[in-house]
This record gives sequence, structure tokens and C-alpha cells, in this order.
Amino acid sequence: MNSDKLNIVILGAGNLAWHLSQECLKKNHNVLQIYNRTKKKGEKLSKKLKCEFTSKLENVNHNADVYILCISDKSIAEIANSLPIENKLIVHTSGAVHQDLISKNKRGVLYPLQTFSKDRAIDFREIPFCIEANYENDKQTLIKLAKTLSNKVYEMNSDERKILHLAAVFANNFSNFMYSISEDILCKNNISFELLKPLIIETANKIISHSPKEAQTGPAIRNDQTSIEIHLKNLKNRNYYDIYKILSEKLRGENKI
Amino acid sequence: MNSDKLNIVILGAGNLAWHLSQECLKKNHNVLQIYNRTKKKGEKLSKKLKCEFTSKLENVNHNADVYILCISDKSIAEIANSLPIENKLIVHTSGAVHQDLISKNKRGVLYPLQTFSKDRAIDFREIPFCIEANYENDKQTLIKLAKTLSNKVYEMNSDERKILHLAAVFANNFSNFMYSISEDILCKNNISFELLKPLIIETANKIISHSPKEAQTGPAIRNDQTSIEIHLKNLKNRNYYDIYKILSEKLRGENKI
Repeated sequence: MNSDKLNIVILGAGNLAWHLSQECLKKNHNVLQIYNRTKKKGEKLSKKLKCEFTSKLENVNHNADVYILCISDKSIAEIANSLPIENKLIVHTSGAVHQDLISKNKRGVLYPLQTFSKDRAIDFREIPFCIEANYENDKQTLIKLAKTLSNKVYEMNSDERKILHLAAVFANNFSNFMYSISEDILCKNNISFELLKPLIIETANKIISHSPKEAQTGPAIRNDQTSIEIHLKNLKNRNYYDIYKILSEKLRGENKI
Repeated sequence: MNSDKLNIVILGAGNLAWHLSQECLKKNHNVLQIYNRTKKKGEKLSKKLKCEFTSKLENVNHNADVYILCISDKSIAEIANSLPIENKLIVHTSGAVHQDLISKNKRGVLYPLQTFSKDRAIDFREIPFCIEANYENDKQTLIKLAKTLSNKVYEMNSDERKILHLAAVFANNFSNFMYSISEDILCKNNISFELLKPLIIETANKIISHSPKEAQTGPAIRNDQTSIEIHLKNLKNRNYYDIYKILSEKLRGENKI
């Protein structure tokens, strides 16, 4: 492990594994092997990487410097702890899961804070990587690895990462739900969602230069009850009605002086 | 009005007036005059445009082809109807307000569906302009004007525009509120909001290629009650707690098969 080039085994073949493994290869690391429970997805990825594939934990390659779990939160403990590998660094990539769910000594976390889709290219240099490890020298290995992938590398413990992940639910899951509602409202009224796309993109881009709190506009923050009543009257979907009502109240509540 | 070059009076000097008037000038229209109730803001804009300024409705220039109201919804009726101009096209720029709130015959709407900040440049070619007018020839004038500004010009009546504006509250106001909550959660825990910016921007950009309904991820759609409980336990702010809870329930409800 004296060179910057690491030998890596990726466990998983979902969206993150897909992008992360290819990026590791691009940055001249060796991806020795892909492990995946189901053959089809795993073989597709290993073929793309021109590396070994296994669907059996007992056949996972023993010669890697780091084993990166790109799997669902609920599988991390089970897979990590039944992996027949000792004295090798094993890390997960989850925002929500505590480092110590991995019971091996040489454990850590390499959490890329981004949303991945197989068919969308992502600029890795811009992805914040949050690093944690049980041992200092393993942390340094992970930092070195992350820095070959991204310009944005942060040390962060499991408690901080948990808060970051919670904030990300609002920033990503719930904002996407708002897009989804707007799309559905337009669709039900035969209006193209294309019309809203430039607004959605500018609203997001604005955070680069403006604090979202300061950029807030709309009927709720103005306490414009006339507009709010008209909007509520037009919301036939009971869930959307409830969401509009509670978000308007809370938005107003949070922004009262 | 045989040439493509229109004589325009802009009423208002807020963010929209600021950008729209300059864009009209850039596209070789004549901005004859800025009207604004308060002198300071109006004079600043008229100086930038090198055009006349007035703060008195009775002094509004009579020679324009079109009078564009860039003012708050609640002032539209009052300003439009006390404007001492007859037989000239008067339009507002609001998504929420019915065309007929302007009581003059030659009335219309030129609604640019975008969020404007004085200090952020916007690519007008990408802004959807929604057009309505009481008379066909006025509609053609507005379409011609909008097409000099943007590639995306749509005819739309007041009822459709009202729905579009309602959808925009979710897409813009409420998604920005989600950003604002995520910023506050991080701030209270001494974590930089910079970490979330790439995620927010990618979440928005993803709608270009993926329907937000299909792109939805997170604990709520997976019905991952363990993660939801942990998140709720970490939400000390009662408003954020309520929002997380109701959005998770509704998100799950809307996405049940």
C-alpha cells in the first residue's frame, strides 16, 4: 500500500457501485473484483470493468487493500460481518448507518453525498466524500483514495454524518417529492411539465449565491391568504391539499420575525 | 406597430422589471419610460436603461404600444384601472391573477415563469412565456414580443395559468423551503451547507432526463420505518418534525401501488 494505487473489491452492483467502481478504475486503482448476490447485475458491471465477478461471499478476493460495500443499509451488517476477510479495511458508503455496524476492527466509511442514476454521468470532483475510520492509518488510506476521486473530502464521525443524511432527506427526497407533485398537477390538467423545468433548475442553482432562507418567496411567506385560499380550492388531491396547507403554515411559522 | 420594434412602458421597478426591461432593450425594443411609486428604485432602473422615469400615473407616457405591469398581484387592478391610458395594450405579468382584473378592453398577460433576483443573470431564451390577450391582434403582438425574448412561448388562458402557478408553488416555493430546512439543520449542527449544494443541484438537474416520480428515493418510499424513526428522533425543531412526518406519510401514500 505504498503507492497511491489501491486494490479494491466492490460489493454491490447498484447505481453507486456502477459509478464508483468505474471512477476508481479511471483514477488508476485496481478493481480486483465485483461481488453481488444476483449474478446478472454483477456480471454486467464486472464485464464493463474487465474484472472478476463472484456471487459467493466465500470467494471474495483476499488481496484487496479496501473492500467497499455499495449495498442497501439493511444488508451492511450482515454482509460485512459474514465476509471471510480479516485484517483488511472494510468500509460502507451509507449516510445513515453507524460505522460500528461493521464489527471488524479495520472498519470505516466512505460516504459520497450525491444521488446516482445509472444513466446520468456525475462529475466526481464535485461530490463531497465524508470519511470515517476506526484506525488513523485506515482513515489516511480512505482520505487518499477519496482525494483521487474528488476535490471535496471531509472527515466526519457517524453522528455528524447522521445529521447530514437527515438534512439530505429534505434537500433531495422531499424537494423531489415537491417536483413530483407539481408534475402530477400539470399532467392532470394537460399542461406540459417542460414549462416548470427552467424554474426548478434556477431555484436550485440560486442556492449557490443565495441562502435559501433569504431567497424564499411565495404566498405563504407573504401571508397572502387570498392566494393560499385560491390554491387550496384548486387542489383536488387530498394529500396535496394537506401538504400545501401544512407547508404554508410551517413556512410562515419559521419565517416570522 | 408594423415593425418588430415595440415601444414599451414598464410599470414597476422590482426584480422582474429590472431584468425584463433590460432584456427588452437588448432585443432592440424602445423602453420609453419606467413608472414606479417610489422614486429611488424607479430612478435607479431608468438611469440604467437611459429612459424617462415618473412616479405619477398621470404622467405615464401615452405613446407606447404596450404597458407592462411588473407589480405585486394585489396592486394590478388598482394601477391598471387608474392608468389614464386608453386604447393601448395593458398587460400584467402574474401567474395567479386573472386577465380580467384589468378592466380595460385591450388587456392581456405576459407571464414569464421564472424566479428573478436582481443579482442573478437569467437566460431569457429558456424562460417559458405564457401569453393571453382579450383581442387576437393583441395576442399576436404579445407573441411577437415574447418570441424576441424567449424560445419558449405558450398561449394559455387564465384558468390554465392559475394551475401552472399553483404547480410552481410546489416546484419553487416549497422545494426552496426544503432547502432552507436542510440548511438550518446543518447550521444548528455546525456542518457547512456547502456539502449539500451538489446534491441539491443534481436532484434538480435530474428532472431533465427523469420523471421526478420515477426518480424518488429515500426512507419514505422504501417504507423504511427504522430510518424514519431515527430521523424523527433527531428533529428537535417541532415544525421540521411535523413536516418530515407528514411528507413521509403522504409520499408513501402517493406512491403505493
